[in-house]
Amino acid sequence: MIKQTIAKKNTKLSTIPTRAPKGADRSKIEKETKKMTKRIAELQEMLYANNDKNLLIVFQGMDSSGKDGSTRSTFKYCSPSGVSAYGFKKPTDEEFAHDFLWRVHQQAPRKGEIKIFIRSHYEDILIQRVHKWIDKKRVDARIEAINAWEKLLVVDNNTTVLKFYLHLSKARQLEKLTERKEEEDKFFKHNPGDWEERKLWNSYRRCYEDAINRSAIPWYIIPVDDRWYRNYVIASVVLETLEKFKLSWPPLKDEK
Amino acid sequence: MIKQTIAKKNTKLSTIPTRAPKGADRSKIEKETKKMTKRIAELQEMLYANNDKNLLIVFQGMDSSGKDGSTRSTFKYCSPSGVSAYGFKKPTDEEFAHDFLWRVHQQAPRKGEIKIFIRSHYEDILIQRVHKWIDKKRVDARIEAINAWEKLLVVDNNTTVLKFYLHLSKARQLEKLTERKEEEDKFFKHNPGDWEERKLWNSYRRCYEDAINRSAIPWYIIPVDDRWYRNYVIASVVLETLEKFKLSWPPLKDEK
Repeated sequence: MIKQTIAKKNTKLSTIPTRAPKGADRSKIEKETKKMTKRIAELQEMLYANNDKNLLIVFQGMDSSGKDGSTRSTFKYCSPSGVSAYGFKKPTDEEFAHDFLWRVHQQAPRKGEIKIFIRSHYEDILIQRVHKWIDKKRVDARIEAINAWEKLLVVDNNTTVLKFYLHLSKARQLEKLTERKEEEDKFFKHNPGDWEERKLWNSYRRCYEDAINRSAIPWYIIPVDDRWYRNYVIASVVLETLEKFKLSWPPLKDEK
Repeated sequence: MIKQTIAKKNTKLSTIPTRAPKGADRSKIEKETKKMTKRIAELQEMLYANNDKNLLIVFQGMDSSGKDGSTRSTFKYCSPSGVSAYGFKKPTDEEFAHDFLWRVHQQAPRKGEIKIFIRSHYEDILIQRVHKWIDKKRVDARIEAINAWEKLLVVDNNTTVLKFYLHLSKARQLEKLTERKEEEDKFFKHNPGDWEERKLWNSYRRCYEDAINRSAIPWYIIPVDDRWYRNYVIASVVLETLEKFKLSWPPLKDEK
């Protein structure tokens, strides 16, 4: 069963599915997801205890693609002492007074930590590019800087970087944005600006494709039209990554 | 009159003077320095008012080479609202839990600001290398990261980076370290560890040379055995840089 797609150069988003595969067994998959997220929490505790390796998880995607929901589902059994999420908003005046990575670098994971970026440094080559606030030269320089910065985390702080593109169809976005105007527990997510940005769908898609294709660390393209399937795929990537760390509990410290 | 040396590839520190040129007229030079430092303060105020370009000044050099003294002399007429100095000490536990540039990036100048680094990101390829706390592979990765990070500041935040290597002779260091044990107003600078590091003089020199030769942004090599001459040379480089910005007072903001 195809789960996620690891992006290669020349990735075309239009050729990659946004829905669960036909015939996928939802109730079986939900049980499997629960099992995986519990195992993620065990391994996260060990990661924290070892205080060395660390994980940076980037969630990017169109409005309503499920960045918050993916975070909640994947890490629901984890402790906030070792897992934290940071949502990047419109930069403050102080942030604008520095280079685009200044505020991002401050949020890099510490040793032993899992850090989740809800939106990220990629916004600075997405929204800013779609609205033409920056020129091509600046985009190129930023892509180069992003690749260098991520490499720094990897080589100098044992960070593993997982980048998830939450791949949503335009039709499904319409349903999800509409839910936000109709369901009381989603009212707080409603933002009229999202409907404006939706008009720029094709332009965002082109910029996403370019960002994905020029990334030194490959992206995972996650089909997110079905929440239950999205949660399953993300959990499986995160769990696979943590299992590869071959974590164990650290030995008792010598008391001499 | 030779003032500073701009480092090129294959710079050999042993071939570069540490003293004022013979025949330099001290009292004339001190008057000139005072004039320049006053002009620096005027231009700094305009830089601050324009709130766009900004300056990062890195002071590196052996113990007692005059990093604090150079800072005090060059910016004595400036306002602390637009000029600040940050001295990098032994990293804290929180800093050690991140990559080496994490704490450095937080101190990058904001738009309009002059930021002085007393010691800097370069310590992480100097003291750590001399004491063999990091291997060659890590040194290479850090040099690459430093070059990429400085480029980011330049292209993404209009920063100009000035790097000063305060070039001190070993004989003059002996005098200066000794002063610190003999003069009451220098007692606070005395650190027995400096005498230990002095034994590693040649090793530090080799690492400095390598760092200078592999820097994308060239270093200024400043002769610092004579404080009055050091102050003159640094002021002239800083002033020349600020003059090149062609600063003027910003126009009155429209009130409509």
